[in-house]
Amino acid sequence: MTDSANKMWGGRFAAGPDAIMEAINASIGFDQRLARQDIEGSRAHAAMLAAQGIITDSDAQAIREGLLTVLSEIDGGTFAFSTALEDIHMNVEARLKELIGEPAGRLHTARSRNDQVATDFRLWVRDQCDAAQTAIAALQRALIGQADQGADWVMPGFTHLQTAQPVTWGHHMMAYVEMLGRDASRFADARARMNECPLGAAALAGTSFPIDRAATAKALGFDRPAANSLDAVSDRDFALEYLAAASICAMHLSRLAEELVIWSSAQFRFVRMSDRFSTGSSIMPQKKNPDAAELVRAKIGRILGATVGLFTVMKGLPLTYSKDMQEDKEQVFDAADALMLALAASEGMMKDLSANPDVLRAAASSGFSTATDLADWLVREAGLPFRDAHHVTGRLVAMAEAEGKDLPDLTLAQMRTAHDAITEGVFDVLGVDNSVRSRTSYGGTAPDNVRSQIARWKQRLT
Amino acid sequence: MTDSANKMWGGRFAAGPDAIMEAINASIGFDQRLARQDIEGSRAHAAMLAAQGIITDSDAQAIREGLLTVLSEIDGGTFAFSTALEDIHMNVEARLKELIGEPAGRLHTARSRNDQVATDFRLWVRDQCDAAQTAIAALQRALIGQADQGADWVMPGFTHLQTAQPVTWGHHMMAYVEMLGRDASRFADARARMNECPLGAAALAGTSFPIDRAATAKALGFDRPAANSLDAVSDRDFALEYLAAASICAMHLSRLAEELVIWSSAQFRFVRMSDRFSTGSSIMPQKKNPDAAELVRAKIGRILGATVGLFTVMKGLPLTYSKDMQEDKEQVFDAADALMLALAASEGMMKDLSANPDVLRAAASSGFSTATDLADWLVREAGLPFRDAHHVTGRLVAMAEAEGKDLPDLTLAQMRTAHDAITEGVFDVLGVDNSVRSRTSYGGTAPDNVRSQIARWKQRLT
Amino acid sequence: MTDSANKMWGGRFAAGPDAIMEAINASIGFDQRLARQDIEGSRAHAAMLAAQGIITDSDAQAIREGLLTVLSEIDGGTFAFSTALEDIHMNVEARLKELIGEPAGRLHTARSRNDQVATDFRLWVRDQCDAAQTAIAALQRALIGQADQGADWVMPGFTHLQTAQPVTWGHHMMAYVEMLGRDASRFADARARMNECPLGAAALAGTSFPIDRAATAKALGFDRPAANSLDAVSDRDFALEYLAAASICAMHLSRLAEELVIWSSAQFRFVRMSDRFSTGSSIMPQKKNPDAAELVRAKIGRILGATVGLFTVMKGLPLTYSKDMQEDKEQVFDAADALMLALAASEGMMKDLSANPDVLRAAASSGFSTATDLADWLVREAGLPFRDAHHVTGRLVAMAEAEGKDLPDLTLAQMRTAHDAITEGVFDVLGVDNSVRSRTSYGGTAPDNVRSQIARWKQRLT
Amino acid sequence: MTDSANKMWGGRFAAGPDAIMEAINASIGFDQRLARQDIEGSRAHAAMLAAQGIITDSDAQAIREGLLTVLSEIDGGTFAFSTALEDIHMNVEARLKELIGEPAGRLHTARSRNDQVATDFRLWVRDQCDAAQTAIAALQRALIGQADQGADWVMPGFTHLQTAQPVTWGHHMMAYVEMLGRDASRFADARARMNECPLGAAALAGTSFPIDRAATAKALGFDRPAANSLDAVSDRDFALEYLAAASICAMHLSRLAEELVIWSSAQFRFVRMSDRFSTGSSIMPQKKNPDAAELVRAKIGRILGATVGLFTVMKGLPLTYSKDMQEDKEQVFDAADALMLALAASEGMMKDLSANPDVLRAAASSGFSTATDLADWLVREAGLPFRDAHHVTGRLVAMAEAEGKDLPDLTLAQMRTAHDAITEGVFDVLGVDNSVRSRTSYGGTAPDNVRSQIARWKQRLT
Repeated sequence: MTDSANKMWGGRFAAGPDAIMEAINASIGFDQRLARQDIEGSRAHAAMLAAQGIITDSDAQAIREGLLTVLSEIDGGTFAFSTALEDIHMNVEARLKELIGEPAGRLHTARSRNDQVATDFRLWVRDQCDAAQTAIAALQRALIGQADQGADWVMPGFTHLQTAQPVTWGHHMMAYVEMLGRDASRFADARARMNECPLGAAALAGTSFPIDRAATAKALGFDRPAANSLDAVSDRDFALEYLAAASICAMHLSRLAEELVIWSSAQFRFVRMSDRFSTGSSIMPQKKNPDAAELVRAKIGRILGATVGLFTVMKGLPLTYSKDMQEDKEQVFDAADALMLALAASEGMMKDLSANPDVLRAAASSGFSTATDLADWLVREAGLPFRDAHHVTGRLVAMAEAEGKDLPDLTLAQMRTAHDAITEGVFDVLGVDNSVRSRTSYGGTAPDNVRSQIARWKQRLT
Repeated sequence: MTDSANKMWGGRFAAGPDAIMEAINASIGFDQRLARQDIEGSRAHAAMLAAQGIITDSDAQAIREGLLTVLSEIDGGTFAFSTALEDIHMNVEARLKELIGEPAGRLHTARSRNDQVATDFRLWVRDQCDAAQTAIAALQRALIGQADQGADWVMPGFTHLQTAQPVTWGHHMMAYVEMLGRDASRFADARARMNECPLGAAALAGTSFPIDRAATAKALGFDRPAANSLDAVSDRDFALEYLAAASICAMHLSRLAEELVIWSSAQFRFVRMSDRFSTGSSIMPQKKNPDAAELVRAKIGRILGATVGLFTVMKGLPLTYSKDMQEDKEQVFDAADALMLALAASEGMMKDLSANPDVLRAAASSGFSTATDLADWLVREAGLPFRDAHHVTGRLVAMAEAEGKDLPDLTLAQMRTAHDAITEGVFDVLGVDNSVRSRTSYGGTAPDNVRSQIARWKQRLT
Repeated sequence: MTDSANKMWGGRFAAGPDAIMEAINASIGFDQRLARQDIEGSRAHAAMLAAQGIITDSDAQAIREGLLTVLSEIDGGTFAFSTALEDIHMNVEARLKELIGEPAGRLHTARSRNDQVATDFRLWVRDQCDAAQTAIAALQRALIGQADQGADWVMPGFTHLQTAQPVTWGHHMMAYVEMLGRDASRFADARARMNECPLGAAALAGTSFPIDRAATAKALGFDRPAANSLDAVSDRDFALEYLAAASICAMHLSRLAEELVIWSSAQFRFVRMSDRFSTGSSIMPQKKNPDAAELVRAKIGRILGATVGLFTVMKGLPLTYSKDMQEDKEQVFDAADALMLALAASEGMMKDLSANPDVLRAAASSGFSTATDLADWLVREAGLPFRDAHHVTGRLVAMAEAEGKDLPDLTLAQMRTAHDAITEGVFDVLGVDNSVRSRTSYGGTAPDNVRSQIARWKQRLT
Repeated sequence: MTDSANKMWGGRFAAGPDAIMEAINASIGFDQRLARQDIEGSRAHAAMLAAQGIITDSDAQAIREGLLTVLSEIDGGTFAFSTALEDIHMNVEARLKELIGEPAGRLHTARSRNDQVATDFRLWVRDQCDAAQTAIAALQRALIGQADQGADWVMPGFTHLQTAQPVTWGHHMMAYVEMLGRDASRFADARARMNECPLGAAALAGTSFPIDRAATAKALGFDRPAANSLDAVSDRDFALEYLAAASICAMHLSRLAEELVIWSSAQFRFVRMSDRFSTGSSIMPQKKNPDAAELVRAKIGRILGATVGLFTVMKGLPLTYSKDMQEDKEQVFDAADALMLALAASEGMMKDLSANPDVLRAAASSGFSTATDLADWLVREAGLPFRDAHHVTGRLVAMAEAEGKDLPDLTLAQMRTAHDAITEGVFDVLGVDNSVRSRTSYGGTAPDNVRSQIARWKQRLT
């Protein structure tokens, strides 16, 4: 072992078992992010206790005001978090006792840390569901802005990163709007499902105090109290479902980011990233590294990792609370931060992005990208069976390739050597503009379709 | 390299590049599971083509009847799948051509393998969402059966696998019913979100044929056609969301299975597994290995693995279809089989399971499990602040322990040495039956509460 | 639930609990792949039992010959596997009994299924370590073939998919040879670590028979017997370590595959895939989809998924054998097949691949890719501090860009306006050939360096 | 969106694109942990530059001393890290410039941030391989201490958490010593493989400066310079291999932790955790929650999650450096911290643990745990075939069970009713002490065997 490693680790645990136990056991280092939720929950609980006559109105009043003071200390950065007090709950309660004295001791009536932490964390994750939806909508607006601008800009539609058929820039942008729409709806569903209040489950069995769980649930914006106290303190589904939704969303962002990286290469030049989301080189001023896109592409790593992490923790845990479950928060905190950052960076990039319509158009126009249009015309107008039409098209493409031309450059006479049912009308579908205009099936790439979808989404997002 | 390894691998690819390409490229080995969906989709497509005048009624009729013949051949096991034909789509179409000749060539009009496979797979996954809900409901019924029988059987409520407070067997069973209820609702949400029809997206850009996407969507039970053709062929969210829901469900099953393994140990003896779901030993007849429970506990491994697998595949793929996406099916097939098997085995185990009420009750009665009841009584009836009540309780527990008694065995006089506000009424909350009866807060373990929840769920499940 | 889903699942388990238990419990569906290893292990065990006088020589002879007959039946495809006999061990033993009668009953002396399966599976995984090394070497040879051909072909060295500095094709190919070299060494280390024989651990405690574990270990090619019987039957590290090594190797292949996909796009045209590893389009003959590369890129998904799957299974399992561990094999089988296929396909692709040296060179020559060479010259020859040299270079690049030139096209006079220490010698480092030739530091891209590395690796691989 | 969520996220990015880019791009928040390695690397680089005459000795001297000053500022906590300077490299270099002026600008000659960060991170991970080995050895010593004390304490050997055969406490402890031995050897192999120096690869192509890569490699304790500059800056295998080894080790710890949790339940009472690694309850003084064991059991979650995270990031990245790779460090930092903490806590728990030999022995003695001994005796001494011996044993167990006895309590006469070859000698193998003493095969549970293994390991660990 090298000296530096020795120093690093030897030092840390030299203090012995107590230092190790404190290091592994204390959560205040991370669960202080639940301070606001903890205080909201406690205020609601105190109000309910008083309404039910379990504590006096004056005690409740003192508690509720004292908690606001604690919150303002935390918000103001003057609160001194203590590792000896282990977690956010004890830190808040201890400070409350200093502030208001004896009534603080009544706050924990008919409650336990088990239902308290379940409530706090659920409130936090619920907020994240909301925040994700807001950020997704912002990114959708940026994409719609791009789509609006280039609803009829022709670009290559790729399969296997090979040009397949022409599509429009607007259509491509709107594909991501659809994906993100599903993401938002996933967060909405998760939010609705998690919106049950654990408070009142107490340690695990419920309580004999005449509490009003419906009241605390309502005060905290929950739809109802959780129906089984054992489940209420054991359940971390809400965190897992949030993580799964975040992973899918991050996967979408990774696809968009990959496209941005490829599109901004010197070989593609489909787009130009703004300086604000790329970095340069002091000696190669033309070089523009798409750092933000690469970092967005990578974020799915930690989000998926967090998902796997929490699943692994929860696997095979007997009911009800086990300390293993303390490992839930950092995973979710980290994933949520990564998701919000990736969404914000994606929004910023898409707002700033400049596409190069000329390059897009030129790329779409090469590679006989309208061969399927020709084949479809043969089926539709000349009545050929699909497989025959493909055969004729293949011959025409070969003919054009041999002459170094693209399909629209062949003469009618040349075309008729391949099949005599071909008429002048065929030229209406060749050429990339004709091609995209013809794709009028619902969801197709015809600019008018794209504009309808843009309008529909603008409506939905207001 | 050993001989056997040489033989294994050397042989396989000796045929050279073509054999390798066929091995990596062909999907018929697994996608034949999509046969029914492929044929349903093609039949709907043919009917629509005819209704729109794109093909003739007689061609459509021939196609639709021919496809039924193909299906009956597959169902009957007489269909000869061909690897040279690569996938289920080509296998079906080639056989159709043999059966009906030229009209078969018109089926693929206004369609592509890209939207076809997206439709087939989506139909398959949608069926799995339904199947999962059915299997979950069956397991819930088995759990409710257990809960019904032991709504008032007292057992230890554990935290950290340490006895914390008494609860009832029925309450514990109903905790899993709640978890599974969320699982079912997750599959329902996923189903609703995926229920958009990709058919008509064609290769990626839509089509110029005057198709009626609403008609095919409706014929296949979809709520609507997908709104963006690029997204329609690129999207595998539905598979990922199914896998995520399956992973959470499997996690729940792993917790139940862990409890069954622990509970059936010689040390716990809380339950006895039926012979049908355990294995014995030829020489130790009393030994009963909880094999089914262990296998259920393990199933989350492959389901979570499949989830990670598909996320990894989709990460960073540019639009639209890339061949990488062919790796979607086996992951989902395997995970779906594992989930259905784990649900069925769990249902079987829970139906057959015999709990030992006497052992449960004895375990609940040890370890001063009603200490919190005593503390709560001191707060509620004697007006002590929560923290003081805990202090007094601690003294009484210590006193009982010193005398080798449990709390209800102390005399009133002894109790009053700890605090003179204690009265005869305290005995009403000591003892495990009193304890569970007193936990009447909504969601609490009081037998009447449990019975209400059972009734509510019975209602929901009919 | 739709009818088809009903039919699919309803049918399967209609037979009730017994069918479910058989479905979840039996492993013969997959562990028949261990037949060869099972028979090797049993033959070694029988020989040792006889050598130690535990069974007679004639019994051992009968057993060993009978097992060879079983193996030939399995190899010949005439063996009838039975699900009722659950696993490969019972299938083989039952058939042996049919073939040789009573002596078959003595084979299982001083052995248990626990140490038997641990041995079989370890032998199988050990073979895979060998097979992987062989396949890796083959791929390395294909890469070296490419490197040899283009040791001095100039191409862009990318960071962020942006041209950074010129390198050579040979150097780029050799980067993968290095990665694969680490992969091979990882499989070698894993093999050495796993090469301890579990046989003789019996069920878990060892045995009272006077067995000779060193003898069976030696007969099976193990370095030594495992030193702790509990560990021997509980350990699946060897499978996990294999999976981890396979995941890293698959990650490398995914990077190479990504490059092939990008390089074969119409925009890059760096390479041309052979027809054997790509697919075309019936109507777009110029289209060449890099299917094999995409499938290789995807394979990390299932391999990483299998890794996560087995880790999840093993997490938190108490000693020794639990039935959960039966879930180890399919994960490893699937991952091993995927790895071998991905290696073979990569080898095939790299053998067949045609790079386009002209396109590579043109791409390397654009974008002021020798700006760092200029800056380094200023430091080295003109004595400027590094940061100043970068500043001067930036000015010269801007000057060239303004004139639509590249750096070597500027005149000396122009250059001297930026810094008067610049001399004629500067042109020796501008231009991509000069640039790559100058990178002579060990491991650098200078063609002579590359050729040395090629020679070193050719030597290592023979 | 709730107000609190709005506040949380709205506030953060209100500053617009620049704040977002800084948030996603800057790494100084975490890579400051590489300060020591960064400075070591730069000092070695400067010394080499001077030795090669690339910079002057006095510049090198100034740089090397200046860097020590920077290090002491960092160690002393007086260094002001700046986010505007993005990363640790720029932070150190900027401060160096303040301290020593112009010569600081020469440090970066013949180097790039790409090879610099690859070197720094590799040094850090290498230290972690050392640290893990040290911590593993400490845990092994604690386990050996337990084994030493109870080399002959009889306890149940479990399969399926059911008593199978008696083993000894020492044997069980030594099983973990074996597992951890493999873990240590995995870290050693990883260390050896990663011990190549990237420094001198420069940006990616090597350099034209006459550097001496062997010298910097040696100065930093590397075995040799990396052989390919493209690979050197692209490679993160070392981090992945570390993570894989850490995941396997954490899996072992999760198994031990699971056993501790189960063993310390009221139902098992096999062990008593020390107060230092468990937490109590203010009112239930007898309650002892095994918090540390549960947290150790959970740690595999984040370590496996980090592994998945980094694999996902690296999947499909083209060469060479992409910004995605900046996501490597936090994953490894978090996993390494978790592993070290889990090892330290496990060591602490095992040092403090009190096993209950009486409870272990009683558990081992029930359940006819010596039935296999009886069967083996019948094979060995009475010459019965294995399967017949099992049949006779089954009858005797049934007989004993019917009389409420265990096997050693049957009379010889009773035994002979099952088979008349049974003699007085059979009692030598019944009874748990006889059983464990008889398991003398190498690796078996006989106390003398266990003591040999203890001696072997004590030797290895000194």
